[in-house]
Amino acid sequence: MSHELLSKVGSYDFLVEPFHCDFSHRIFIGHLGNHLLNAADFHSNERGYGMDYLNTVHKTWVLSRFVMEMQEMPIAYDRITVDTWVENVMKFFTSRNFAIRNSNGNTCGYGRSIWAMIDTETRQPVDILAERDGLITAYIEDEKPCPIEPFKRVRLSKDAKTAKVIDTHYSDIDVNGHVNSVKYIEHMLDLWPLDWYRQHRLTRIDIAYTAESYFGDRLHLIVEESADGEFDIQIMKQSPNSDTLKEACRGKIKFCEM
Amino acid sequence: MSHELLSKVGSYDFLVEPFHCDFSHRIFIGHLGNHLLNAADFHSNERGYGMDYLNTVHKTWVLSRFVMEMQEMPIAYDRITVDTWVENVMKFFTSRNFAIRNSNGNTCGYGRSIWAMIDTETRQPVDILAERDGLITAYIEDEKPCPIEPFKRVRLSKDAKTAKVIDTHYSDIDVNGHVNSVKYIEHMLDLWPLDWYRQHRLTRIDIAYTAESYFGDRLHLIVEESADGEFDIQIMKQSPNSDTLKEACRGKIKFCEM
Repeated sequence: MSHELLSKVGSYDFLVEPFHCDFSHRIFIGHLGNHLLNAADFHSNERGYGMDYLNTVHKTWVLSRFVMEMQEMPIAYDRITVDTWVENVMKFFTSRNFAIRNSNGNTCGYGRSIWAMIDTETRQPVDILAERDGLITAYIEDEKPCPIEPFKRVRLSKDAKTAKVIDTHYSDIDVNGHVNSVKYIEHMLDLWPLDWYRQHRLTRIDIAYTAESYFGDRLHLIVEESADGEFDIQIMKQSPNSDTLKEACRGKIKFCEM
Repeated sequence: MSHELLSKVGSYDFLVEPFHCDFSHRIFIGHLGNHLLNAADFHSNERGYGMDYLNTVHKTWVLSRFVMEMQEMPIAYDRITVDTWVENVMKFFTSRNFAIRNSNGNTCGYGRSIWAMIDTETRQPVDILAERDGLITAYIEDEKPCPIEPFKRVRLSKDAKTAKVIDTHYSDIDVNGHVNSVKYIEHMLDLWPLDWYRQHRLTRIDIAYTAESYFGDRLHLIVEESADGEFDIQIMKQSPNSDTLKEACRGKIKFCEM
């Protein structure tokens, strides 16, 4: 299968569905994140280095880091466009950026992500550049701006407290057989009551994914306020019949007052 | 605003997004239900009796009953079409049906729903036929088949056991300010472990919505197996600082072995 060279930046339209919005009629950041991951999937499939191709050679993309920074949250019934492009490719990692525009043409925010490619049998990283003679490098777009800060390091002190322990359920587990990346975001945001969201708007979320968690794992959410309106959160997984906690992901969430 | 008379049946296409699918690559029934509710929303708005218009006169549609029966669950990346039409209208209730087709043209399943119209200030039912001179009646389609049984009555015995008690969170609450209709379905299906879904496929779900629940309510899920692979579930809500349980909804879920 040969692929005609397409544009480096792919643009995908999504309707902001009413039931994907919170009480304030703004899209839940988890659903927005899902649109970004869909855009990544469409973009890479259309260009020949997506899951469609990788599955045939027993490889897959794994999301390693994800950040979204929003000036404005799209509201119900708006039609948004997600632009996505590959900013850089190295042997074991590639960075993919996102811009989110609403139907007025305003940019609502940006995203950054870092992905690894793994062999689905060994679960070990593989050389991205070796795949299809480095096809992905034909699509590097390093001039389109993505004016948000790179990933922030998340570091919790020893005093950080476990805020909640939750069980994983059938609906947490996605096509890959493990807890869906976006579900961790939902679980983090569910730490705050509705009243908090009446007075605060999420402006930025950084997540680093460390290890996959599975059905039956219990998730321990450890939280620390690192600055005013800024929270570091670590999600530790506890496998059934085990007392050991291992990190699944860690994130930083920033709110501003409304 | 005048509305040209459109077709009675509206058809809406949806992509089965990969991250809306479970470990078996079949769409989560909650996400499918959401597509049906979106189709209902689009269909009624386009025809002048949807939320868009009702909001301007301080009224809204309220879902009272919902049933889906599936012969086949659409799989990831499939493009499905949801047909929807109004089957009947009475003073205080209207029935709306659904058919779900996949991209091969096969019918995957059907849905039925019953809706009331309420005044958003008094929360009392209003006369549907009085709205816009009964415009909705111009769209009654009572010949298109919807070959599934009507709603089943759900009746739990006094011996039925509370299987789980869960808290409501920020992400449960939708644009209407109460727990999203589809979230109850998710909470019900999360009663079974992943292994159950490796051996069973959901074939039918009936839900009757009794009262809205709000952020901070605790939900008590009471479950009873009424026949082989058939479960009756009642969700009772407990408001903060109250010992009283009131019914939020009740449902019947049918599985078949795979």
